[in-house]
Amino acid sequence: MSLKLNTCLSPALYEYYAEKNTIIVMVDAIRASASICTAFENDVQFIVPVAEVEEAKNYKLQGYKIAGERNGKKLEGFDFGNSPFNFTEENIKGEKLAFTTTNGTQAVNLVKNNKHKNIDLVIGSFINISGLTNFLNKQQKNILILCSGWKNTVNIEDTLFAGRLAHLLLQKNKYEILEATNLVLNIYKNSGNSYFDFVINNSPRLKSKLEFLEKDINYCLTEDLTSEIPYLKDDKLISMNL
Amino acid sequence: MSLKLNTCLSPALYEYYAEKNTIIVMVDAIRASASICTAFENDVQFIVPVAEVEEAKNYKLQGYKIAGERNGKKLEGFDFGNSPFNFTEENIKGEKLAFTTTNGTQAVNLVKNNKHKNIDLVIGSFINISGLTNFLNKQQKNILILCSGWKNTVNIEDTLFAGRLAHLLLQKNKYEILEATNLVLNIYKNSGNSYFDFVINNSPRLKSKLEFLEKDINYCLTEDLTSEIPYLKDDKLISMNL
Repeated sequence: MSLKLNTCLSPALYEYYAEKNTIIVMVDAIRASASICTAFENDVQFIVPVAEVEEAKNYKLQGYKIAGERNGKKLEGFDFGNSPFNFTEENIKGEKLAFTTTNGTQAVNLVKNNKHKNIDLVIGSFINISGLTNFLNKQQKNILILCSGWKNTVNIEDTLFAGRLAHLLLQKNKYEILEATNLVLNIYKNSGNSYFDFVINNSPRLKSKLEFLEKDINYCLTEDLTSEIPYLKDDKLISMNL
Repeated sequence: MSLKLNTCLSPALYEYYAEKNTIIVMVDAIRASASICTAFENDVQFIVPVAEVEEAKNYKLQGYKIAGERNGKKLEGFDFGNSPFNFTEENIKGEKLAFTTTNGTQAVNLVKNNKHKNIDLVIGSFINISGLTNFLNKQQKNILILCSGWKNTVNIEDTLFAGRLAHLLLQKNKYEILEATNLVLNIYKNSGNSYFDFVINNSPRLKSKLEFLEKDINYCLTEDLTSEIPYLKDDKLISMNL
């Protein structure tokens, strides 16, 4: 029997999609996934995904750098927000980082707290998509693309990423494609020539923030800026290249 | 400010989409929505949506006809399953009906049990889609298309219906289109010339049942077989034509 390729459009649906022997690809395309990948590209030591703001502040006292946003805005007292441009080599090399975001790090923690059935988790982003595809194609495991969405609602950019990743995975391997994966493949096939235009035209939420986020969004939607594939080991995201 | 047009892809996400002053369009395209509309076309008196099998059996003792399925199969001791072809004039005219299904009637009950913020509920189906569009276009209320999905996962046929309905609604009125509605509009736009082919090619679940369901699926995907718009009043679905 072939391996399954499924897609979960919101963390609030995760329990209905979770299966054993699965690699979860967690995506928060704009911006947490790209920020995490960028931090590893620039040699962060490891990243602890943190749910609560106060918890992140405790890490600060232990010598960590702390990064975080709520509703897209940098948190007071934090070293960094959630822009990938924060995670330069100068800022992050060799550091331990605690990271809390509205959606992405919450989705990682959801999986972490339900990690009882031979489940692995990696971070998916447009900026690491080809390396990620090659890695996933080599594993003998089911794949579940977990979209972190927007406060448990479905969003366009993670859905588009899921469709693009499914499309790339299917170029090399056969998978049993489940219903939600067909849905995201249709979204990807209807997305036209520009990820940026597609995302902005379909997301009033992102369009309204374009003045502040245009540079970040362009970066987050650019393919193959890094070969890093961050993955969850115990309670930390670490580099697979280590 | 214009009225909102939003879409909820699974009952498990309903709490994140519910807003006051909203008409909910509940769809379980294959097959509960079409069965309910057909029952009203053939003059059922009213329908009580029921969550539990045993509860439906109690209605039988009170002189109701009872209809129901689990996982697509008619329940033992029930008068009817969930095929729209069960709900003929001969079978249903003037009768009271209690109805329980895997997904659709559960979604109705979810809304019924959270009915505290000036929320109305109507039943949407391809078989009543034009009449429904005209009705909705005339209301000064936000619209939320609630897909009943498959056991809380996202399905193709309800998503396609949501996209088609949004497309029709936008031909006449302006709405504030929210992100998930753009998503279903993209699905609809990529669906090609045949709803049947699109649904079967994208749903392994329905394809595997085609031998038994082909006639039902064709019927459920046919537009405008009825002008009935069933709506929820207290705990009963009744005809708007009454």
